[in-house]
Amino acid sequence: MSIIDFLLGRPIASYEERAEQIGIAAGVPIFGMDALSSVAYGPEAALTLLIPLGLAGVRYIVPLSLSVITLLVIVFFSYRQTIAAYPGGGGSYTVAHRNLGTLPGLLAAAALMIDYVLTAAVGISAGIGALISAVPALHAETLTLCLVALALITLANLRGVREAGGIFMLPTYLFLLCMFAAIAIGVVKTLLSGGHPVAIVPPPAPPAAVEAVTLWLLLKAFASGCSAMTGIEAVSNGSKAFRKPTVPLAQRTLAVVIVSLVVMLAGMAFLSRAYHIAAIDPNSAAYQSVLSMIFAAVAGRGWFYYLSIGCVLLVLIFSANTAFTDFPRVCRAIAEDRFLPVSFANRGRRLVYSEGILVLAVLTAVLLVVFGGVTDRLIPLYAVGAFLAFTLSQAGMVAHWRKQKNPSFRNISINALGALATGATVMVVIVAKFTEGAWITVVIIPALLALMYSVRRHYDKVGRAIASPTPVDLSKLTAPLVVVPMPYWSKIAKQALRAALEISHDVKALYVIEENKHEDDFCREWETYVVKPARQAKVPAPELVQLKTPYRFVISPIVDYVIELSQANPDRRIIAIVPELVEKELFGYFLHTQRATLLKAMLLIKGNDRISVLNIPWYLK
Amino acid sequence: MSIIDFLLGRPIASYEERAEQIGIAAGVPIFGMDALSSVAYGPEAALTLLIPLGLAGVRYIVPLSLSVITLLVIVFFSYRQTIAAYPGGGGSYTVAHRNLGTLPGLLAAAALMIDYVLTAAVGISAGIGALISAVPALHAETLTLCLVALALITLANLRGVREAGGIFMLPTYLFLLCMFAAIAIGVVKTLLSGGHPVAIVPPPAPPAAVEAVTLWLLLKAFASGCSAMTGIEAVSNGSKAFRKPTVPLAQRTLAVVIVSLVVMLAGMAFLSRAYHIAAIDPNSAAYQSVLSMIFAAVAGRGWFYYLSIGCVLLVLIFSANTAFTDFPRVCRAIAEDRFLPVSFANRGRRLVYSEGILVLAVLTAVLLVVFGGVTDRLIPLYAVGAFLAFTLSQAGMVAHWRKQKNPSFRNISINALGALATGATVMVVIVAKFTEGAWITVVIIPALLALMYSVRRHYDKVGRAIASPTPVDLSKLTAPLVVVPMPYWSKIAKQALRAALEISHDVKALYVIEENKHEDDFCREWETYVVKPARQAKVPAPELVQLKTPYRFVISPIVDYVIELSQANPDRRIIAIVPELVEKELFGYFLHTQRATLLKAMLLIKGNDRISVLNIPWYLK
Repeated sequence: MSIIDFLLGRPIASYEERAEQIGIAAGVPIFGMDALSSVAYGPEAALTLLIPLGLAGVRYIVPLSLSVITLLVIVFFSYRQTIAAYPGGGGSYTVAHRNLGTLPGLLAAAALMIDYVLTAAVGISAGIGALISAVPALHAETLTLCLVALALITLANLRGVREAGGIFMLPTYLFLLCMFAAIAIGVVKTLLSGGHPVAIVPPPAPPAAVEAVTLWLLLKAFASGCSAMTGIEAVSNGSKAFRKPTVPLAQRTLAVVIVSLVVMLAGMAFLSRAYHIAAIDPNSAAYQSVLSMIFAAVAGRGWFYYLSIGCVLLVLIFSANTAFTDFPRVCRAIAEDRFLPVSFANRGRRLVYSEGILVLAVLTAVLLVVFGGVTDRLIPLYAVGAFLAFTLSQAGMVAHWRKQKNPSFRNISINALGALATGATVMVVIVAKFTEGAWITVVIIPALLALMYSVRRHYDKVGRAIASPTPVDLSKLTAPLVVVPMPYWSKIAKQALRAALEISHDVKALYVIEENKHEDDFCREWETYVVKPARQAKVPAPELVQLKTPYRFVISPIVDYVIELSQANPDRRIIAIVPELVEKELFGYFLHTQRATLLKAMLLIKGNDRISVLNIPWYLK
Repeated sequence: MSIIDFLLGRPIASYEERAEQIGIAAGVPIFGMDALSSVAYGPEAALTLLIPLGLAGVRYIVPLSLSVITLLVIVFFSYRQTIAAYPGGGGSYTVAHRNLGTLPGLLAAAALMIDYVLTAAVGISAGIGALISAVPALHAETLTLCLVALALITLANLRGVREAGGIFMLPTYLFLLCMFAAIAIGVVKTLLSGGHPVAIVPPPAPPAAVEAVTLWLLLKAFASGCSAMTGIEAVSNGSKAFRKPTVPLAQRTLAVVIVSLVVMLAGMAFLSRAYHIAAIDPNSAAYQSVLSMIFAAVAGRGWFYYLSIGCVLLVLIFSANTAFTDFPRVCRAIAEDRFLPVSFANRGRRLVYSEGILVLAVLTAVLLVVFGGVTDRLIPLYAVGAFLAFTLSQAGMVAHWRKQKNPSFRNISINALGALATGATVMVVIVAKFTEGAWITVVIIPALLALMYSVRRHYDKVGRAIASPTPVDLSKLTAPLVVVPMPYWSKIAKQALRAALEISHDVKALYVIEENKHEDDFCREWETYVVKPARQAKVPAPELVQLKTPYRFVISPIVDYVIELSQANPDRRIIAIVPELVEKELFGYFLHTQRATLLKAMLLIKGNDRISVLNIPWYLK
């Protein structure tokens, strides 16, 4: 078994993929993972911005969470309709492209691509952040741990992770169970204590207030908190995976996801406030995530704490996996429309879009390294892409309904409300987060669009250049002129000569000889080794052409001769035979001068349409 | 001008290299640089080991230096004879290989290769060490500075540094002048002050003694001090560069080098002792080189100090350059005997052995990084290789004389003494430095030998496999079977079909079609586009073969078909035409699936001797 086989698994034979047949129970983990896991960083991102307000800041988490929840409900109704309209899968690119046109489609695509890169990066770094909260000794290794997790996910995806499968179900439901349990315990304790519960492990006291509250600060905190909503488009993207009746099943799955998310967001806001849990600066060595503090305050640092944090870690890392399944698919959809290199649409040996996976892995690694593996710094970049894709998708739905024969006012207005709400959020996020990184998204999206258009232009240019709907011209076919370089007499040379004479009677053997020499053994042996056998076999003997050269180069005289020959014979094809010793061992490969490869490359670079290379392998047994 | 041209210079046309014609004045810098510069680290290495003895340690530098000087004189007479015997150049590999046989030759070669890598690393790190002594603020950047210097030297050598040239002369003679002046001033001051000179800038007081002197410690110090002798074989290596009368000129050059070296070693020992200059731990932030302390003590930190340190820096870095001219030559000599990949014997675009230069640069960089750019840690590894090469070379000379008709007892005994003295030193160095790194050399040399033998074995195996001193068999030549993959109808497809019919009338066009489809436009158009024109041109129409495939793969059905065809026609050659769109722009290159490349690679991997690939380029205008 080769190393590649060991790492990536044996190649999978090509067959029609079995249509997935899933229900709500499997749908929630598969498509909800990304959205549900957002609770691990959304509220925290908002609270982090409230740190300068000290203890007072904690109070604002409740109204902020309520705003996010409102937005969530609007978006829920909006996506319910997308599911109904596109039961075959309504990703933002598809919906915007079909209903609004190419530019909005590509805009959504670019936003989505950025979004997925950030999902991967945020998922991994938040997951590792949760791990570090539990084991603070690992703090110095944050970035290394992130990159190791990324490598494992990449490898798993190159092997081809089947989306379904119990692997996702257990941690997701365990995560929900832990969250709901912690919230329930905390709420009960708070109510029993008359609103002043005693934390089992008290969170660190919030620092003293150094700023007064401003609308601007709250706006920024809201913009950060919106990252809790990322990922909720996944159900409508993948709705075709549901078994029949597809639409209601997918809609109900979406409902479960949204309701769970609402409960968790509301619960976390309530507990943060009740237990006075403020965020901790993620750069501080005493960093702990808000979730970790909530679990510790409500239930102490016992088995339940570690179980919960373990689930958070798994769910976050698996949410990064969502990006690894979706990013390559978006790339493929765009590549199929030839706005990205067509190789993004090639499936690799394990039936996955390997190129998209690798590109995502590289981009994610760059992000993690640049931001030092700390989630919080990535959040400003995050929400723009996600909400831009939401907006375009909802706007596309509005256009979709308006094209119907009897446009339903209710349908239109639900999606229009969704588009307006998410569009307004995009604006808020761009403005509030501009200097903190949102400008990067704003710069990258047009750059991506420009790239995509130039890719398409190039394909169109090539397509026009090679198009030719007329019959082939087969008049005046002439046998080609064949040249065979002869470094020395060997089995390889013999094989090449035979092959040359099989395709043409016009063969020239090229022998490169030092400038100051006149003739050598080879030229004398030519008579015996080639001319005589040719006479016996009654074929025209190949001509031995001696190419003089200063001692150093062998390749250029051959290339020059071939080019001159093609100029002297403008109506004939020149075939340069390149015999090649093939070694299966890597050790042997490095020992041979790569002259054959170099000769082929030089002929390709300097050559023209009439110069072809015939590669004759000789296998070393 | 391309970036490559800018960095490496335009390619140099191939011509016979002008024989160098140098005398003593140029010979000393060119061949003496490496040896002379050793004074910058040899005595320092010995003194560093004496640090634990405190002030008392400084006294031992005098007898240690005298031992090294004795060894030096013995080796001088020994190499004088090598020059006389091999005026055409007597490198250790040559002398040992010719007189003692293959294994001793390769042993010397391996020792030399290691020695050169260490020369490069020690030269650079010692040069940077001198710079840091003058500008202590740069201490934290030691490794970076070393790597930058390495990159510059590598680049300069890839461009092809002409060995001759005033660039080496000025700093070498200035360096000698500064050294002699400092020694003279110091000696005079010492004598005038009755043996107790007052330092202008007093060296830091040696730390208190923490150990008593032992023979073992002195042995280790001697082994370290021997690194002052590295490089003295260079004159005999390069003697053919001298003008006539070659032998006396080369011998006198060697004498100048050795005498200068002796004066400097003796002077430094004297001054270290008189001024109580002990070495400073190179890991300490207060590190200064011994030479820097001597210059500062004798003449203060004025212009003379900075001039001297500047010369030391240049000479050391240029001494690394010696490795860059010699390492690739040793590799070439070994490669020409096919104990290393033959590509080491290829000259690059600037008439230099680029591959050797690159390999040396990589190995040096690895050493610098592993040892953190600090000279002292490299010294233990250094002397083993150099002295092993000395020993084998001298032993080779003994054998050389014994082969003469009238062996001269004097000649034999001089070289025998040299071989014994250097051989004994190898033993001392190995034992004294074993745990500090000499074991690495002891492990690497056999590994290198094993590698070289296996390279040679492989070449011999291939040579035997392809040798064939009999005429070519040209009976029963049959036109090949030609297959042409047709992805869709285009100018590229037309060109390929025409080329196919020019070389054979037995052409099969391969059209890959999805498994569940039956026929499509292409199959219908075939009649119009190909069959009819063929009938008109009176050539047999190519057969359209439809290959059914599950949708994913295009390459494998073609490869499988070609393999099957070759099995079904065991007496015929199969030519697979691979049309290829050639784009000169890099941007375009990435946009096209590398299917042509993949198809060629798959056919090469899965194919046999009778399957050839004809590559037909189509140039995008």
